[in-house]
Amino acid sequence: MELDIDWVVGFVDGEGCFYVGIYEHPEMKVGYRVLPEFRVVQHKRDIQILYALKRFFRCGVVRQNHDDRYEFRIRKHECLMKVVDFFQRHPLKTKKNVDFRKFARIVRKMAEGRHLTEEGFKEIVKIAMSMNSGEHERLKEIYDTLTG
Amino acid sequence: MELDIDWVVGFVDGEGCFYVGIYEHPEMKVGYRVLPEFRVVQHKRDIQILYALKRFFRCGVVRQNHDDRYEFRIRKHECLMKVVDFFQRHPLKTKKNVDFRKFARIVRKMAEGRHLTEEGFKEIVKIAMSMNSGEHERLKEIYDTLTG
Repeated sequence: MELDIDWVVGFVDGEGCFYVGIYEHPEMKVGYRVLPEFRVVQHKRDIQILYALKRFFRCGVVRQNHDDRYEFRIRKHECLMKVVDFFQRHPLKTKKNVDFRKFARIVRKMAEGRHLTEEGFKEIVKIAMSMNSGEHERLKEIYDTLTG
Repeated sequence: MELDIDWVVGFVDGEGCFYVGIYEHPEMKVGYRVLPEFRVVQHKRDIQILYALKRFFRCGVVRQNHDDRYEFRIRKHECLMKVVDFFQRHPLKTKKNVDFRKFARIVRKMAEGRHLTEEGFKEIVKIAMSMNSGEHERLKEIYDTLTG
């Protein structure tokens, strides 16, 4: 199955997710790890779409999400840079684009190693906090700990 | 906002719904009314996408679905024929296409007035029963009543 550029934009407008996980990680100097992730989740009946996305981006993995649901997921940094580049050239049309632009800022900050300094990490948490992930409270606590 | 054909296909692959409602209706000769409907539901923050779809298809209405959710919906028969024609020329890539093809068969049967005869109505219920609507049991009961 060949995917067209505009089809991919439309499908990701519907089904894609730009997520920035922030996890405690004692081995990191700042005490936390930043894990941005682009993913598309589908019922297993549409697993062939996930593999088609993997071929399209030439990146990522397809794996079980939970139960009957599978995900196409990109975590590797150079692959995320490709994703960021793609959706910058071909913008999403829904409000998901607001989250995408924040995601892109975080991925670019990480390319510069900003997440490894306390100042840069705080900036990242602040951006992630404003994303539509339902984790505002948890991230605000991390942010307050760092700034308090 | 201008929508591209492939974007619309991709977005509907993710967010579209082809639904065939079958409701009791004592005034109809067969005792039931068949109401096929194409819809896309979004959070109100993306209501402009729904209006863009309305302009794209030159059909349908945008109205509240429930709470913060709005829908773009097409019910008018000549508009549904346009939708059927569009997705036949530009096929969906997910398994939603299986439901679409059943939906298209029902809309075409209705164009021929088949839903107004008991035989045709039974055919329609049988197709609708096999669609992925979560209404299998209710429709099976209607079907059994008609054939029993």
